[in-house]
Amino acid sequence: MPKLILVRHGQSQWNLENRFTGWWDVDLTEKGVAEAKAAGRLMKEKGVLPTACFTSLQTRAIKTLNLALEEAGRLWLPVTKDWRLNERHYGGLTGLNKQETREKHGDEQVHIWRRSFDTPPPPMEPGSQYDPGADPRYDGIDVPNTESLKLTIERVLPYWESDILPVLASGETVIISAHGNSLRALVKHLSNISDEDITGLEIPTGQPIIYDFDDNMVPGERYYLKDS
Amino acid sequence: MPKLILVRHGQSQWNLENRFTGWWDVDLTEKGVAEAKAAGRLMKEKGVLPTACFTSLQTRAIKTLNLALEEAGRLWLPVTKDWRLNERHYGGLTGLNKQETREKHGDEQVHIWRRSFDTPPPPMEPGSQYDPGADPRYDGIDVPNTESLKLTIERVLPYWESDILPVLASGETVIISAHGNSLRALVKHLSNISDEDITGLEIPTGQPIIYDFDDNMVPGERYYLKDS
Repeated sequence: MPKLILVRHGQSQWNLENRFTGWWDVDLTEKGVAEAKAAGRLMKEKGVLPTACFTSLQTRAIKTLNLALEEAGRLWLPVTKDWRLNERHYGGLTGLNKQETREKHGDEQVHIWRRSFDTPPPPMEPGSQYDPGADPRYDGIDVPNTESLKLTIERVLPYWESDILPVLASGETVIISAHGNSLRALVKHLSNISDEDITGLEIPTGQPIIYDFDDNMVPGERYYLKDS
Repeated sequence: MPKLILVRHGQSQWNLENRFTGWWDVDLTEKGVAEAKAAGRLMKEKGVLPTACFTSLQTRAIKTLNLALEEAGRLWLPVTKDWRLNERHYGGLTGLNKQETREKHGDEQVHIWRRSFDTPPPPMEPGSQYDPGADPRYDGIDVPNTESLKLTIERVLPYWESDILPVLASGETVIISAHGNSLRALVKHLSNISDEDITGLEIPTGQPIIYDFDDNMVPGERYYLKDS
């Protein structure tokens, strides 16, 4: 039966520094590396081994995948990398410390930017040091300058439908190594979570989440691999 | 202009132990990891950055590629993994220490197995502990039980023609992270080296080799990136 494994990347340098990251390409911390390896060991121990892999164009998710695959003895698997699995673009908040942003804009405004379903943060200023626009990895891609969770969903789900679901439906065990908000997009869709509830759903780092699909490609309840 | 970068994987555990490796999936040593990272740093320093990647299904080559890409800031590149870039299959010699093999079979016989162009070593025994036949990475692949360099070339070159050359011809800078003998196959073809001479050509580990191609896809002289 088709099985889907979702993994949020391990702790990144800016998770640690409590900064808005979005499309900025930070690396994993040592703790993040350990989380990724632990995810791979868990898959091996449980005998839940992927056969096809998807990830974003961001180092922290790719590295999490590579480290997990290596621990699971599956570094040889095909991997597809696509920008549509990238983290939500945090616009003008990118690079800012979350505490400083609260002090500057107030708790309520920051709460709206972080937790509103459809209000995007202010756009990234042209020429910002955090603008990935000139990065060759995004050649030919219409890079957003800010995204709400709703906008994130609007690019994740079409990719899910067109590129990932057919692979899953062919019987593969698919792993997606991605980000808090691109994974929220998928969990919202697969677990039928409301616009209100999804923004508060925390997806833990490096903790494989499983969906088993039935013959009609209807997903069952999601569960943590560690609890299975 | 199209540019090809060839990298032989860094030192592996069995390189260090002086054992015939072939299709056995050993890991890099610490030195091998350092060699892979140095290759990535060199590409970055020289501004010779790949845009498309090919590697084998073997951990030591995949990991060399991943480590080099990470150092070069290009972990996000597409990577194609294919068994036809695997190391030459060493048949019944797989796992044996080279010195012990010389003592058992004589210097001359081992020299023939290692350096003959078209004499394969004895085949791997069925049920050998080193037989990768049951490994899921080779599902659907007719795994050889021994290979001469000639037989290795006979699977590397068709793959080069069908899958790699078209990408290169489209203007990409292609990196191939592979093995001593799969790279010999390519260098023999691209540099027009005779059957006699190719078996003695040593390809150093972790040292990027470059071919620049002209408009007609004719390769120039090969050179080491470090010397450019």
